[in-house]
Amino acid sequence: MSQPAKRVVLVSRPVGEPKASDFRIEEYAPPTPGEGQVLLRTIWLSLDPYMRGRMSDGPSYATPVPIGGVMEGGTVSEVIASNNPGFDKGDIVLSRAGWQTHALLDGKALTKIDPKLGPVSTAVGVLGMPGMTAYTGLLDIGKPQAGETVVVAAASGAVGSAVGQIARIKGARAVGIAGGKDKCDYVKKELGFDDCLDHRDPNLAAKLKDACPKGIDVYFENVGGAVFEAVFPLLNPFARVPVCGLIAHYNDTEAKAPKWASSLMRAVLTKRLTIRGFIVSDFAARHADFLRDMSQWVREGKVRHREFVTEGLENAPAAFMGLLKGANFGKQLVRIGPDRA
Amino acid sequence: MSQPAKRVVLVSRPVGEPKASDFRIEEYAPPTPGEGQVLLRTIWLSLDPYMRGRMSDGPSYATPVPIGGVMEGGTVSEVIASNNPGFDKGDIVLSRAGWQTHALLDGKALTKIDPKLGPVSTAVGVLGMPGMTAYTGLLDIGKPQAGETVVVAAASGAVGSAVGQIARIKGARAVGIAGGKDKCDYVKKELGFDDCLDHRDPNLAAKLKDACPKGIDVYFENVGGAVFEAVFPLLNPFARVPVCGLIAHYNDTEAKAPKWASSLMRAVLTKRLTIRGFIVSDFAARHADFLRDMSQWVREGKVRHREFVTEGLENAPAAFMGLLKGANFGKQLVRIGPDRA
Repeated sequence: MSQPAKRVVLVSRPVGEPKASDFRIEEYAPPTPGEGQVLLRTIWLSLDPYMRGRMSDGPSYATPVPIGGVMEGGTVSEVIASNNPGFDKGDIVLSRAGWQTHALLDGKALTKIDPKLGPVSTAVGVLGMPGMTAYTGLLDIGKPQAGETVVVAAASGAVGSAVGQIARIKGARAVGIAGGKDKCDYVKKELGFDDCLDHRDPNLAAKLKDACPKGIDVYFENVGGAVFEAVFPLLNPFARVPVCGLIAHYNDTEAKAPKWASSLMRAVLTKRLTIRGFIVSDFAARHADFLRDMSQWVREGKVRHREFVTEGLENAPAAFMGLLKGANFGKQLVRIGPDRA
Repeated sequence: MSQPAKRVVLVSRPVGEPKASDFRIEEYAPPTPGEGQVLLRTIWLSLDPYMRGRMSDGPSYATPVPIGGVMEGGTVSEVIASNNPGFDKGDIVLSRAGWQTHALLDGKALTKIDPKLGPVSTAVGVLGMPGMTAYTGLLDIGKPQAGETVVVAAASGAVGSAVGQIARIKGARAVGIAGGKDKCDYVKKELGFDDCLDHRDPNLAAKLKDACPKGIDVYFENVGGAVFEAVFPLLNPFARVPVCGLIAHYNDTEAKAPKWASSLMRAVLTKRLTIRGFIVSDFAARHADFLRDMSQWVREGKVRHREFVTEGLENAPAAFMGLLKGANFGKQLVRIGPDRA
């Protein structure tokens, strides 16, 4: 190996926003695969908001990254050495190799990617976890009906962009919320949402009301904060609120009771709302359906997607900090190595 | 008719707790049935917490009682005159005749009750709306599995008592919360709950934790307030929270953000909770299932119930005000007239 292997480890649990000093880049000697093991070279690292949760040790659905441990993450990687009969040198695989240039894994957690299906990066994007989060949360919890109104925030992002486009495919009105005019234009013109509003607009609540003249039937919750505050009064009876993320709150340090909180349970009752948290692995049984439908929609141009690429593992911490602030425009990827070594 | 007819009308929309002056008792001449109409004499009036909502004109799933209008309510009544070929004098019917001694109705909203099936009062209790609220909310939203833990407040009441007993039938652990030692003893000894705690106990949270060593999988929410605050930290991943009432908040006059509110949505996400509001009519399609199962359980002694009877229409307002404070012990009924005139 011409270059030393590198990895990003967690140095300290962030209080509020993560900062550069919470991460450390280490060099290490790439390991040699033992019996049944596979050595991977990372091509693409996916950065996703859920990773903020893994940096904290509060109660969650997943155990946190230990201090001194490699940051977790999904990757697209190439097999560069294999002692596992199931994998050959040169295979491209989806794995959870984490924020590092190389990883030693047994074969259990690897899924081969067929590069003929399209750019391999889509395996961590529109055809991967973010796409499936959108698909299952919207269809299995949100259940949009033709003529209903679906609202999603972070609408130019990996999950939000798919949510709105799938809502349109199902005959619903799709209203996105995104940060800034460029993103809103993209969401409306390229992704075909019926409308898109800027969450920085001081009149967000009033504009959202105008954009949803028949109220909101599905609110796909992936940000929380001010967006939820604007959405909340517009929810229709029997509205469904799949909750897969609360980016606006990930860096909260103290419990600040939002204005709507006291009336939330009352609204649940009087409007007969369904609010349900989920993560994509809850719907593992739907993976084949997802791949079939989503790959077809991507081929037909009904679901478009956009990648936002940061170059080099060293820049992953900065890219992640930016992701939490909405600095990305499309699916945030880090290019760790070339497609072919 | 020997006595003048009487009715209770709403005089003013209560601010906070309803008071006697929000109601007025009026005498009126009982009407004569026209073509297709039926004149009813009320036997039993059911009092239920939802009626507090009907006294306010805030957004809800139902329109409020108009000022000067008769208070709404379910009744068991006798047909005393009929111009409708579907009903004979002497028939006992379930209706929404409201807080009055007599009512003129067309036949559409009447259901005949077979007095041979048991005391006719059960048609507004364990075999009526409260029983079906418990049955559908617990089974269709809560979905308790054998070995799981179900918690319900107002456990000696019409809904709560059925919730815990059905949970036990399904093999779940049932923990009730009720007001005072007598009610808790009844819930444990007569209804067979695994445990019951007094909501006035200052150590409720700690005791609830002890009573639910494996956490809480289903919280049937019918009161809100301090009970929800104690329940909230104990909810297990994938817990279900059917919400059919928030008695503790019905008299709230200002939005007071409860302590747990700011962390509610975060818990929805990290614990993948399902919170769903409902009213019993959402599950109308389940009525036949409910009647079949519940009447069998009542016959077999697996579901027991208790009635708390107040005598006379004049006392209905005081009984209702007491109901909102938990003064009743069992299903709150008002005896308006004898079983047979």
